[in-house]
Amino acid sequence: MGHHLDEVSGPARVAGPGDGIGREELALAARNHGLPLEALRYDVTPPGLHYTHTHYDIPYADDTRTPWQLSIGGRVRRPRVLGTAELTSYPAVTRRVTMECEGNGRALLTPRPVSQPWLVEAVGTAEWTGVPLRVLLADAGVEADAVDVVFTGADHGVERGVEQDYQRALPVASALGENPEALVAYGMNGAPLPPQHGFPLRLVVPGWYGMAQVKWLRAITVIDIAFEGFQQVAAHRVRQDGVEEGEPVTRIAPRALLVPPGFPDFMSRARVVRAGAVPLEGRAWSGWAPVTGVEVSTDGGREWREAELEPAGGHRWAWRRWRFGWTAEPGRHTLGARAFDAEGHTQPLRPSWNLGGFVNNAVQDVPVLCVERD
Amino acid sequence: MGHHLDEVSGPARVAGPGDGIGREELALAARNHGLPLEALRYDVTPPGLHYTHTHYDIPYADDTRTPWQLSIGGRVRRPRVLGTAELTSYPAVTRRVTMECEGNGRALLTPRPVSQPWLVEAVGTAEWTGVPLRVLLADAGVEADAVDVVFTGADHGVERGVEQDYQRALPVASALGENPEALVAYGMNGAPLPPQHGFPLRLVVPGWYGMAQVKWLRAITVIDIAFEGFQQVAAHRVRQDGVEEGEPVTRIAPRALLVPPGFPDFMSRARVVRAGAVPLEGRAWSGWAPVTGVEVSTDGGREWREAELEPAGGHRWAWRRWRFGWTAEPGRHTLGARAFDAEGHTQPLRPSWNLGGFVNNAVQDVPVLCVERD
Repeated sequence: MGHHLDEVSGPARVAGPGDGIGREELALAARNHGLPLEALRYDVTPPGLHYTHTHYDIPYADDTRTPWQLSIGGRVRRPRVLGTAELTSYPAVTRRVTMECEGNGRALLTPRPVSQPWLVEAVGTAEWTGVPLRVLLADAGVEADAVDVVFTGADHGVERGVEQDYQRALPVASALGENPEALVAYGMNGAPLPPQHGFPLRLVVPGWYGMAQVKWLRAITVIDIAFEGFQQVAAHRVRQDGVEEGEPVTRIAPRALLVPPGFPDFMSRARVVRAGAVPLEGRAWSGWAPVTGVEVSTDGGREWREAELEPAGGHRWAWRRWRFGWTAEPGRHTLGARAFDAEGHTQPLRPSWNLGGFVNNAVQDVPVLCVERD
Repeated sequence: MGHHLDEVSGPARVAGPGDGIGREELALAARNHGLPLEALRYDVTPPGLHYTHTHYDIPYADDTRTPWQLSIGGRVRRPRVLGTAELTSYPAVTRRVTMECEGNGRALLTPRPVSQPWLVEAVGTAEWTGVPLRVLLADAGVEADAVDVVFTGADHGVERGVEQDYQRALPVASALGENPEALVAYGMNGAPLPPQHGFPLRLVVPGWYGMAQVKWLRAITVIDIAFEGFQQVAAHRVRQDGVEEGEPVTRIAPRALLVPPGFPDFMSRARVVRAGAVPLEGRAWSGWAPVTGVEVSTDGGREWREAELEPAGGHRWAWRRWRFGWTAEPGRHTLGARAFDAEGHTQPLRPSWNLGGFVNNAVQDVPVLCVERD
């Protein structure tokens, strides 16, 4: 009898009633990390604070010793292999983009889908520098029968019994689109990509959830059929069970988060403020359309008041800062904020459940204890 | 009736039998993070991969707008307040140091102390640049009656009911010592400190666990009594119950970790290798004395064989790389490694329990499934 991958690779499952986070979820939580929410203060997130999520291992790439190669092939007239030096010879484009994991909010669902257990912190904003994907594809000459463009990363593993390199596709119209304009990026915040963000090359698709942002990019392949790889059809779909085909996850649903005010208790993470004026601030974003408003509740979602929204400053694909003046009175409060976008999308007060735990953009609850001034 | 901090801040506790990781522990795990173990490959850990652990919030410091001030006072003849520019006018010292959280291994204890739930990954190695603490203290003129040197960070919170700025002390002999030589550091891997690593200033005490490495350092205070702050006497002690005084945690116990071979299953994190030659490598370190040997077991700790240890390369306080040639046969295996140091310290096969979950340096278990070659 041989040994098979399914000895270590099981189907998707949900946690039982009352089950805490298990060892496997903890192993993911210990290696990946979210944005510590106080870091919402930075317009651009320092790399070690930006959320990061890696399905398998972070590939070890030494571009000096073994030059990285990006192949562009399939249904193109001029297949090519590019090194990083050839990419940097194109005019550089830098774009500020807010990225979020589509599993953000998963650990707040009941029952909890067993996977990377995010609360609300799987987000970050960076200045990505690279070459527009559409420019590279134009140089390669996409054939008229192109349907999907497949992006292959160097990260390799097994998932639900399927051994794979991480692969995702974009419809050809999205890959060639200018709004948003996808980048093949080699820089983050003015420096080379850090290993966990895809060194030396990654895809950046503004407005889309993280599963589209293929890291350690080594191949771009144009195909004339719809891509049916694991990460396209088995994963990243909103479905109620494992039978349903489901809706693919694409753009980032709107979300507002606040910088938790005051100071925390180490263990409970509850926030403490002193009575009086407590300025609140946070960020809001949407991958569907520009954010047009943010509302704040200080009583657990019963009443809502308009926050002041800072100008977008030309950064369509980045979060916007908002501010709200709160006068805290002694007692216990639950703070929250919700974003609205120009297409009428907003955030629900309660999550809607799905098997993968995707796109849970329910309003954040921030419990605060207000004590008297000294 | 007023509201009090103990509404949100409770005593230390342990998890019940079979309790999974709770919401509070998950909130810590989602914001702090360990070293993804494949990053043991790097001699010097990129900042976003180096473990990080923050008790309260990461302070927001804008040294340009509001110049940071470090005060040196107490039992010194020449109290001073230094800015970062004055610190960088001293001759710079750069030292490669492996840091580890004393709570590393906590989540593997039974029962599990409820706190930051580390498995084995709370470690990292960086090149720290700064000014030797003993040089700053010599300039300040330490009085003859000095007992402890207290380091105060700008991070503020509540812990077990005690509101505090993070404060830890070193005995004056350790603060003035040359082996190890503590640094007031302003640089990490040739760049300013990232926010989560203490921007703009932090203490680095080679060989000691993380609780001594005070970040966001704003005051150094020499005192003529033993320091009795919360982080000195209430926390960071090895004890069996909350009554016992306990032994203070100081130096890093020896540990060897291996780069998990092959590739992972996304969810179970189990490793898969193909039958045949599988080179193993990892790192080993000890804060007590130089590492003198590493042994590897491929059968769950029954048999041990010597690994090949790379030279330390002049970096006494950094981890050392080791290598081991394994021939994998189809089936399930449990890999592990153990370090030995020059003072005879090593790693146990089973953890010894304490209430805080400190200094658990039991041998890592790495389950591997070996399948036939294709």
